[in-house]
Amino acid sequence: MEWSKWYYAAMEYKQRTVTCGALRKSDDGQRVVLNGWVHRNRNHGGIHFINLRDRYGITQVVVGEHAPDDVVAVAGELHLEYCVSVEGIVHARPASMVNAEMGTGEIEVEALSLQILSRCEPLPFMIDENETDAKEDTRLRYRYLDLRSGAMQKRIKLRHDFVRAIREYLSSRDFYEIETPTLIKSTPEGARDFLVPSRIYPGKFYALPQSPQLFKQILMVSGFDKYFQIARCYRDEDARGDRQLEFTQLDMEMSFVNRDDILLVMEGLFNHVFKQVMDYQLPAHFTRLTWHEAMNTYGVDKPDLRYGLPIVAVDDLAKASSFGTFLQVLSDGGTVKALKAPASEAPAYSRKYISELEDAAKIYGAKGLAWIKVGSNGAIEGGVSKFFVGQEQALIQRMEAKEGDMIVFVADQWKKTCNSLGAVRIKLARDLGLVTKGTFEFCWIVDFPLFEYNEDAKHWEAAHHMFSMPQVQYLDTLESDPGSVKGDLYDLVLNGYEVASGSIRIHDVELQKRIFRICNFTDEEAESRFGFLLNAFRYGPPPHGGIAPGIDRMVMIMAEQTSIKEVIAFPKNTAAISPMDDSPSSVDEQQLDDLHLIIKQLKKTE
Amino acid sequence: MEWSKWYYAAMEYKQRTVTCGALRKSDDGQRVVLNGWVHRNRNHGGIHFINLRDRYGITQVVVGEHAPDDVVAVAGELHLEYCVSVEGIVHARPASMVNAEMGTGEIEVEALSLQILSRCEPLPFMIDENETDAKEDTRLRYRYLDLRSGAMQKRIKLRHDFVRAIREYLSSRDFYEIETPTLIKSTPEGARDFLVPSRIYPGKFYALPQSPQLFKQILMVSGFDKYFQIARCYRDEDARGDRQLEFTQLDMEMSFVNRDDILLVMEGLFNHVFKQVMDYQLPAHFTRLTWHEAMNTYGVDKPDLRYGLPIVAVDDLAKASSFGTFLQVLSDGGTVKALKAPASEAPAYSRKYISELEDAAKIYGAKGLAWIKVGSNGAIEGGVSKFFVGQEQALIQRMEAKEGDMIVFVADQWKKTCNSLGAVRIKLARDLGLVTKGTFEFCWIVDFPLFEYNEDAKHWEAAHHMFSMPQVQYLDTLESDPGSVKGDLYDLVLNGYEVASGSIRIHDVELQKRIFRICNFTDEEAESRFGFLLNAFRYGPPPHGGIAPGIDRMVMIMAEQTSIKEVIAFPKNTAAISPMDDSPSSVDEQQLDDLHLIIKQLKKTE
Repeated sequence: MEWSKWYYAAMEYKQRTVTCGALRKSDDGQRVVLNGWVHRNRNHGGIHFINLRDRYGITQVVVGEHAPDDVVAVAGELHLEYCVSVEGIVHARPASMVNAEMGTGEIEVEALSLQILSRCEPLPFMIDENETDAKEDTRLRYRYLDLRSGAMQKRIKLRHDFVRAIREYLSSRDFYEIETPTLIKSTPEGARDFLVPSRIYPGKFYALPQSPQLFKQILMVSGFDKYFQIARCYRDEDARGDRQLEFTQLDMEMSFVNRDDILLVMEGLFNHVFKQVMDYQLPAHFTRLTWHEAMNTYGVDKPDLRYGLPIVAVDDLAKASSFGTFLQVLSDGGTVKALKAPASEAPAYSRKYISELEDAAKIYGAKGLAWIKVGSNGAIEGGVSKFFVGQEQALIQRMEAKEGDMIVFVADQWKKTCNSLGAVRIKLARDLGLVTKGTFEFCWIVDFPLFEYNEDAKHWEAAHHMFSMPQVQYLDTLESDPGSVKGDLYDLVLNGYEVASGSIRIHDVELQKRIFRICNFTDEEAESRFGFLLNAFRYGPPPHGGIAPGIDRMVMIMAEQTSIKEVIAFPKNTAAISPMDDSPSSVDEQQLDDLHLIIKQLKKTE
Repeated sequence: MEWSKWYYAAMEYKQRTVTCGALRKSDDGQRVVLNGWVHRNRNHGGIHFINLRDRYGITQVVVGEHAPDDVVAVAGELHLEYCVSVEGIVHARPASMVNAEMGTGEIEVEALSLQILSRCEPLPFMIDENETDAKEDTRLRYRYLDLRSGAMQKRIKLRHDFVRAIREYLSSRDFYEIETPTLIKSTPEGARDFLVPSRIYPGKFYALPQSPQLFKQILMVSGFDKYFQIARCYRDEDARGDRQLEFTQLDMEMSFVNRDDILLVMEGLFNHVFKQVMDYQLPAHFTRLTWHEAMNTYGVDKPDLRYGLPIVAVDDLAKASSFGTFLQVLSDGGTVKALKAPASEAPAYSRKYISELEDAAKIYGAKGLAWIKVGSNGAIEGGVSKFFVGQEQALIQRMEAKEGDMIVFVADQWKKTCNSLGAVRIKLARDLGLVTKGTFEFCWIVDFPLFEYNEDAKHWEAAHHMFSMPQVQYLDTLESDPGSVKGDLYDLVLNGYEVASGSIRIHDVELQKRIFRICNFTDEEAESRFGFLLNAFRYGPPPHGGIAPGIDRMVMIMAEQTSIKEVIAFPKNTAAISPMDDSPSSVDEQQLDDLHLIIKQLKKTE
């Protein structure tokens, strides 16, 4: 109870008149009140120098030898992260004492009164400008402390600024933000739905939306021709990589548009947002690659264009070579592609390093990585060079190679070849330091395949989702040759991450049913799951399309982080647990009873 | 398949060059393309007049006798709500034909080509400027059509404008919008939590938040001293009144503030928003009433101040009367209050109408409603007038009554008396037409009781929630006299609706535990449910407070509606069902299996 005594006294405290980031030389002589946290507290020969911190900055408070006794006494009690109220006089520092690294470095505040508003137990980690290097679960357990670091404060502000700028841009262009429900019908396809048991209707469930997809399409049927929403979405997926159970996307949809209309809106949007939030000038239009081009040139459908290292087709040269493996692959209908690893000291393309590159290629199924080094005077050396006798010049020209460069080859089926060299490309770029920091390279990938074959389930699936429009030239061959159908699909890629995925949608019942059937849904299943969309399509739906950039991932990239947890205030850990509030957790028997539920495991032990 | 043939052709259609609300006289002679819906379609002697509608307006399209044959043929096929593309020439109408009621009434468009983009089955109800008078479930089943009405379009826009103006105001004042998680620990108090079963952890659950209350307090501990969020909240309550399972609130919180700081921010906010969105000027500051004043004068803690009709204390006059009932109530410690029903023709205060007023009073427990009519020359007549002989003038003066007025009395315990007359006041105002349309009267109610006694559970409960600060003068008597403790609580009331509720929060572990104990939580229960908040309070929490206006209800009031369903794009009906997507619904056995759940009812039938 001892703490509480002064706490109750502290309920009436001196409220701040300025923030800890506000005071300047011109405030010399002012009497001010600051409220904030004890960031540092040094005692130099009886003089206390207290760095007081709030969201706006840090101000140095001085409790000198001649300070009132009670102030000196309280100053002696302070520990890191105590929350205090200080009243004092602003003094300009002499020029020699100015701290140019602090916004308030021109002044200090001489404390006249000092009141503890709340105390702080010993800290699990230090709170500093950078985030702590404590373990992730420790950071998440004490997220309230972790969020006090300068780095986390900046990222949360960046996220606020980013989302604010998005809303501002779209609202000023006649988009309405419309809230769609989050307790909806379960229509699982792709990921699993989170279910929410109904208490009123035993055995029935709501589901949390994987995205507002169906509702935004229905809003188009409703005549709201420009919609957006910063929407919370939910996917009950197994923990892998950098995923969260709940995530946020900019969901948008427009009527009476074609693909390019959507692309232009997005280019305008991100031009505005990057300028506004980071004073970063994007190009007016982003590079566009077809899916096929992206695969051929970068070996991936989300190429990082901050660096070059293009993949080069060398089928003709391989065919003219005497390398049996290449010839065999080509005669089996495969392809041979090459990538130039530019001359470099580190890595020096040792045997060991080449074997590392080969490992990267093998992840995507390459059986091996052939290589050739370029010597002086147009000579080629080592690896498979002996099979290219007479073709040295052609190869060097094709690869635009020079002395010290290495050329690596993969020969396999087209997709494996592309993906394997794509992986080599990414590794090379990192190892060679080709990734420019502070640079943001957007590109569009268009003309994606509409379907992909699910080898496990033995049927075709939507590569994107089932509501995307096939390109018109494939309408007659949807069923006979699903694999070759291109969709009116587009992905937005930033620095090698897919940050948005979109499409022109189907708005016709019969075409939508054909897609459902190709994806192995019977008409009955389709009706039971998506009947409400099909019904809406019977009442004058407009042509429409949209896209949905991921907010978490975009802010992560802008903040130059590698985990979305760094830009979410209260994320779950990779095991889908929140160490702070300890969710998920057990609930009262009464709560389960109300929901008419029995836990299966409990049943087993009965 | 017949429909689909033209549909596939329609995939390549003429996109609009202008909207249906854009064209004016100055566009005379322009060639334009419009995309929209057939709002009306009249055939006058072979000439088709098609009113084409989109979100922006209506344009009259004319297919004349000399139009191309294919255009005439398509025009003949059109039915209401077909979605079409029209290319044509703008013609200024002769002055005599201008339709001043349409934005585009100065022009019409002569169709040169006409293409059906999608067809529409016969409509379940007409789509018009006003919403349909179809039954609620019909409106919700066909919500995509219902939302096309002018009235619904306007309300959805109003909601967008309202939320946008809120964000703009707060963001420009250093508030950050921060997203808090919606899969959290279940901490039920007050309403029931919706639960979300964890697939990965059998028998464990996440809960959907009833509000971001604990997380916003933790954000204050994190040093974000001005936070807001337009937050989705969830309460699994029994269907009653105008409630939704999910609703939206403006959640906000500030550090280093007192009550008045919060009130001033809200007054500034709503001044800005009402001016911006509806060009409505609110007073700079809102009326403030203590809870006690509100109850005494208006008989309710959410008074509608668009009209007067104050309740008047008449204990002294009642004590001097000879009416046994009044004297008995007073000697039992009760009170007598009166309300003046002003002279009126309709209702004329017939016996029948007085009995209606009495019914209203009885709902709140009044045993009866005494009355007196004021006659000419200061006479009082009828009802209990005979018991007030000699007090006629005093009574008339106290009530500021004049000829034709009626005075009604309730005598009972204080709260029953207030509430009963409060109900009479509301009924009178409605019946007398005293409620001014288009007027918005805000007021603050402050100094609420912190606790209320739960007669069923036989213990004290938080009247608001357990995190609200008691006023400092009650700190020593929390346990000994909970009923008299006033909290640092405030409600914002608009036109008789509670639209926001807030408080200064506790930020001390010991005080928080005292409140938990008074509310019948053991320390163990409190720790298991709210431990993460108590932990946070051990690390330098700042003094803080906040408020949370309900978005749905505020927009409803601004739109002069009486149900929040009118301002939500896709609400559930009063049975918690969405007739459009038919949620909640049964799910696959596999889905339940994945969640380790068995439905209790199914078990019974095994």
